Amino acid sequence: MFKNILIIGCGMIGSSILRGAIAQKLCKTIYVFEKNSKYLNQIKKINKKIILIKKLDKKIKIMDLVIISTPMSEYQKIIYKLNNNLNDTALITDVGSTRVNVAKLVKQELSKNLNWIMSHPISGSEASGPKYGSKNLFKNKWCILIKSKKNKTLENKLRRFWKKLGSKVLFMQEQDHDKIFSVTSHLPHLVAYNLIKTAQDFQKAHKKNIIKYSAGGLRDFSRIAASNEIMWRDIFFNNSENMSKIIDLFIKNLKNFKMDIKKKRNSLLLDKLKKSKKVREQILLLKQDISKPDFGREN
Amino acid sequence: MFKNILIIGCGMIGSSILRGAIAQKLCKTIYVFEKNSKYLNQIKKINKKIILIKKLDKKIKIMDLVIISTPMSEYQKIIYKLNNNLNDTALITDVGSTRVNVAKLVKQELSKNLNWIMSHPISGSEASGPKYGSKNLFKNKWCILIKSKKNKTLENKLRRFWKKLGSKVLFMQEQDHDKIFSVTSHLPHLVAYNLIKTAQDFQKAHKKNIIKYSAGGLRDFSRIAASNEIMWRDIFFNNSENMSKIIDLFIKNLKNFKMDIKKKRNSLLLDKLKKSKKVREQILLLKQDISKPDFGREN
Repeated sequence: MFKNILIIGCGMIGSSILRGAIAQKLCKTIYVFEKNSKYLNQIKKINKKIILIKKLDKKIKIMDLVIISTPMSEYQKIIYKLNNNLNDTALITDVGSTRVNVAKLVKQELSKNLNWIMSHPISGSEASGPKYGSKNLFKNKWCILIKSKKNKTLENKLRRFWKKLGSKVLFMQEQDHDKIFSVTSHLPHLVAYNLIKTAQDFQKAHKKNIIKYSAGGLRDFSRIAASNEIMWRDIFFNNSENMSKIIDLFIKNLKNFKMDIKKKRNSLLLDKLKKSKKVREQILLLKQDISKPDFGREN
Repeated sequence: MFKNILIIGCGMIGSSILRGAIAQKLCKTIYVFEKNSKYLNQIKKINKKIILIKKLDKKIKIMDLVIISTPMSEYQKIIYKLNNNLNDTALITDVGSTRVNVAKLVKQELSKNLNWIMSHPISGSEASGPKYGSKNLFKNKWCILIKSKKNKTLENKLRRFWKKLGSKVLFMQEQDHDKIFSVTSHLPHLVAYNLIKTAQDFQKAHKKNIIKYSAGGLRDFSRIAASNEIMWRDIFFNNSENMSKIIDLFIKNLKNFKMDIKKKRNSLLLDKLKKSKKVREQILLLKQDISKPDFGREN
């Protein structure tokens, strides 16, 4: 499919693409650029044929697919290197979680003769680093591609690439993407972080060790709130307008909830609690989660 | 250990106690009172020796342990039956999730010659009904008993009972209990319900099907928000003062979070996101959760 693929940034997501591309034989040679020296040995162990490169210099002229899977705050520096060294037949993609900001950056900074089509695979976990990657990470998961007017051939090539990794591919406008994921992904993460912070504040104020009783619900949020801080700072900063709006709606609903409890509005509250179940049913029907109670944790 | 145990309300928790008590041979005969006729066949299938009773009448005089595992809003009716029919050597316990309200109710309504010591096993799942129970549900989980001044012998008997089911038993004051669990259990559930409600509101307003993209975080909250609505209404209503306080702290933190994002307070935000990881580490160290990324969901 491709001759030479370059993966820039080889953490959990990058190494999952790496593993999948090797397993599916999606290229002749695969190159990796990774700044974190601790990761290099882990990457070498994945496959002997992987070529580690130390600089994004003229040698990258041979690449026909470049996949950027670093935190988004690294993109600007990378773009300069690509502008100087990449061949204009190459396809560039990235796996960032917000898209309007990257669309802007690419428009402003990338050489007009280079081609960048954005990807966002909806998969991940709280773990960081190449040892947590999996060739099956993208299997049956959505991968959102952002519509490009430029180059249909490259768009099709990118779609086929993700399909080979197991993704269900879907095209979206970047504005729609950022709105939708502010609700389904960014708000849940923010709320999880905020819940852990609130528990920490309570613990400090009351001098009680409450973490040991976290099995009643808190532990599930703690998993989400253990995600990579650089990645999430970048997401929150880059989707700040949508975040502001959805936080406001969340707070409005929370205040109503508080009044429902305070005033013992029985049928209103029961109705609210019951309606959530429908969402869970939809999620299971859409195979967005496993149906085993308690995530199938072993008892 | 006991001659005759009666379980009143045999859903997920009740049937787990039932299964554990049979497996550990904690009594000669075990009786079940369950109002939901749909559950009766499921309960019969658990074990042939289980005796189903249809009324809480004079026949219950023979019980030496009564375990109430109905929603807390059922307790008042049950207390009247116990007052009229139970022998004063019997031990009564329950598994409700808030304790100050039940302590009050018992003080006001239960016959002075009867003995009620409250239990709260910290285990459960979003699933309701006896078919989801497990004899191992309580294994290595905390079970909080509320200190009673009355009867040390019965207190010891109850402690041994939970230990045989696999619980780690701990004594607490009811006020401390309700404060601690408002943070570690009740707030996480309320926040999960509120997140799903917010996603539903957004979906309605924007006419976008967002649920299909829930794998980015929302799905995990949807599991918690699929919990039994009667049980959770009872918890929220009965712990309303603590809930009010902790919701206010949560909203205060959320507003700060929003400003961190809006004003791009880089180091403040990074620090906040990093600190959450420490809680996750503690939770794993305390074996309150499995350490497999993404709850070990299969890829």
